Amino acid sequence: MTTIGADKSNALDLFYGVIPAGGVGTRLWPLSRAAAPKFLHDLTGSGSTLIRATYSRLEPLCGDRTMVVTGTAHRKAVLAQLPELTKNNLVLESEPKDSAAAIGLAAAILYHRDPRIIMGSFAADQVINPVEKFQDAVREAIHTAAEGYIVTIGITPTHPSTGFGYIRTNGNLDIGSAPNALGVTEFVEKPDAETAQAYLAEGGYSWNAGMFVAPVELLLKHLETNEPLLYTGLMEIAAAWDTPKRREVVRRVWPGLPKTAIDYAVAEPAAAAGDVAMIPGDFSWDDVGDFAAIGRLNAASETNNLTVLGEGARVYAENSTGMVVSDTKRVIALIGINDVVVVDTPDALLITTKEHAQQVKKAVESLRASGDTDVL
Amino acid sequence: MTTIGADKSNALDLFYGVIPAGGVGTRLWPLSRAAAPKFLHDLTGSGSTLIRATYSRLEPLCGDRTMVVTGTAHRKAVLAQLPELTKNNLVLESEPKDSAAAIGLAAAILYHRDPRIIMGSFAADQVINPVEKFQDAVREAIHTAAEGYIVTIGITPTHPSTGFGYIRTNGNLDIGSAPNALGVTEFVEKPDAETAQAYLAEGGYSWNAGMFVAPVELLLKHLETNEPLLYTGLMEIAAAWDTPKRREVVRRVWPGLPKTAIDYAVAEPAAAAGDVAMIPGDFSWDDVGDFAAIGRLNAASETNNLTVLGEGARVYAENSTGMVVSDTKRVIALIGINDVVVVDTPDALLITTKEHAQQVKKAVESLRASGDTDVL
Repeated sequence: MTTIGADKSNALDLFYGVIPAGGVGTRLWPLSRAAAPKFLHDLTGSGSTLIRATYSRLEPLCGDRTMVVTGTAHRKAVLAQLPELTKNNLVLESEPKDSAAAIGLAAAILYHRDPRIIMGSFAADQVINPVEKFQDAVREAIHTAAEGYIVTIGITPTHPSTGFGYIRTNGNLDIGSAPNALGVTEFVEKPDAETAQAYLAEGGYSWNAGMFVAPVELLLKHLETNEPLLYTGLMEIAAAWDTPKRREVVRRVWPGLPKTAIDYAVAEPAAAAGDVAMIPGDFSWDDVGDFAAIGRLNAASETNNLTVLGEGARVYAENSTGMVVSDTKRVIALIGINDVVVVDTPDALLITTKEHAQQVKKAVESLRASGDTDVL
Repeated sequence: MTTIGADKSNALDLFYGVIPAGGVGTRLWPLSRAAAPKFLHDLTGSGSTLIRATYSRLEPLCGDRTMVVTGTAHRKAVLAQLPELTKNNLVLESEPKDSAAAIGLAAAILYHRDPRIIMGSFAADQVINPVEKFQDAVREAIHTAAEGYIVTIGITPTHPSTGFGYIRTNGNLDIGSAPNALGVTEFVEKPDAETAQAYLAEGGYSWNAGMFVAPVELLLKHLETNEPLLYTGLMEIAAAWDTPKRREVVRRVWPGLPKTAIDYAVAEPAAAAGDVAMIPGDFSWDDVGDFAAIGRLNAASETNNLTVLGEGARVYAENSTGMVVSDTKRVIALIGINDVVVVDTPDALLITTKEHAQQVKKAVESLRASGDTDVL
């Protein structure tokens, strides 16, 4: 591994998009669930599913050089959303192995194709506006990565959120082609409210949106150091990926791989080693974490303070406020009920309030405990 | 017509039950609706539909001498509930013609079978407890009817309701076999709140539950006087009823009959003529007028202040109160929502509060106006 930082001139041509499409989106149950996770829904009323919007957002940067990592169960649905995806760029996990394995496998496969590749990993279920500013930030991130960094794109906090991790930066890195690139001193986990307040007061902290751009070689170097077993397994699969032996090797190796997050396996130790940079993201960003977020993102569809989502929605409301997500053709009548969140699907119905939207996850856990797993 | 009051000795043997099963129960939408009206539901968690419970309540008094008047659309469902009902005792209305035609036709058919019959008319969708006290009252009513009265059973008011009409009584009629029989001076329509308060303060007023017992001959006499066209038409149908000509005559005559309520056609003018008596009903009575009533009637099924109705109900609730009526197998999750009324059916969902339960009727009217009649 000696090519790191060697291709500064054509860095943009070396870029490859990676979209990890995992996670059920439990806090959006029963809309989002194992069989139809968050990224397969249009949660913004844009007409596009979140994964399609993610792909389209990257397309001007990488064209068809985009790889998707998702569960075997979602193969058909993902291909329906992304018909241009080639078979070799759809990485299917027979069982979930957490983000280090998912992103690490993409890095390893790409490394085998061309060790100079700079990959950018962007979750399939985020909402970003405007896309041009996102693309500008990614371009700067690619140029910074070409200098030998793992580059994250940090979100400027709009409030002292306790729901996100934070990125702490120090000075500007003085990279000519990436004038906004900052050095990263550390990643910090989701803080309590007091700590979050202190971060905002102090300055120099951004939200960690889990977006990063890195030379695959550098990413794999840190993975090798921190998770040697995982690294070895992924490299073995990667070597077989574009060959007839893929299936056999995946079946043998994948199930035994350790489960860990990319944050622990790569990002945090790389930051400690001084190998991480950050481009500030000058765009609005939402990870659509709960129904309150869906309400925010769909303000345009509000009538009389009631947000209605769903193509076939037949909602009759009288003196009612809140939001209705309809995934059925049923008539839904609301009478004299306020700040309600109604999610109507063929086999499960959720009724809560925006205030309680975060507790949906708990409800799903209780349903699992009670054995009602058919609707999860 | 000269037999009125002629059969005091065997009055109980002359009794015939009549159950008008009409009305959609709009305020219980979407549970109760045109295709599945209120009387076809078990709204008390007893395991019996309301019409089955009504039939069984009358059975000790009249055995199989019970006639049901309902819409053609409900023939199958009613027979499923009342398999012992003979074909000649199931009166099907091809179109609804209001209560005077429905009850008047039953009276006319019974009169043709035996002019001495004393009929008792009891709506199919009321809840009464204990049944023994109801039966005692009906027996007194039959004895009073045999003296030449149209006898209503009045409900002792528990609060100044504005939702019911009232019956005003004067003194005891001194009938040996009916020691509680009172004379009725008038029926008064649903009062405003102030008037209702005055009725309770003054005393001598009972709720009109629409239950009455009368010699068919006397009932028809008043109908003939007040609604001669209706009387003539009903007598023509009745003459053909137990003959092969029934179908032809019904088809020709029924559609042209005037629509009016039995209150105007018989009860009110009969009271003015001094022909009405009342037996006080010493039992609890509910016409299950709205979802709040269903909540009251199902107190036993309350857990943590949440009433759940429906055989296949799969309700998961957290920090929630109110009631859920489930007519599906769907999982329903309630999180942090209070005093809610949820009615879940295959094609329509209602979410309201107990406080707004009376407004359901308005919602149904709006749905009809908007053309969403498939779910009404």
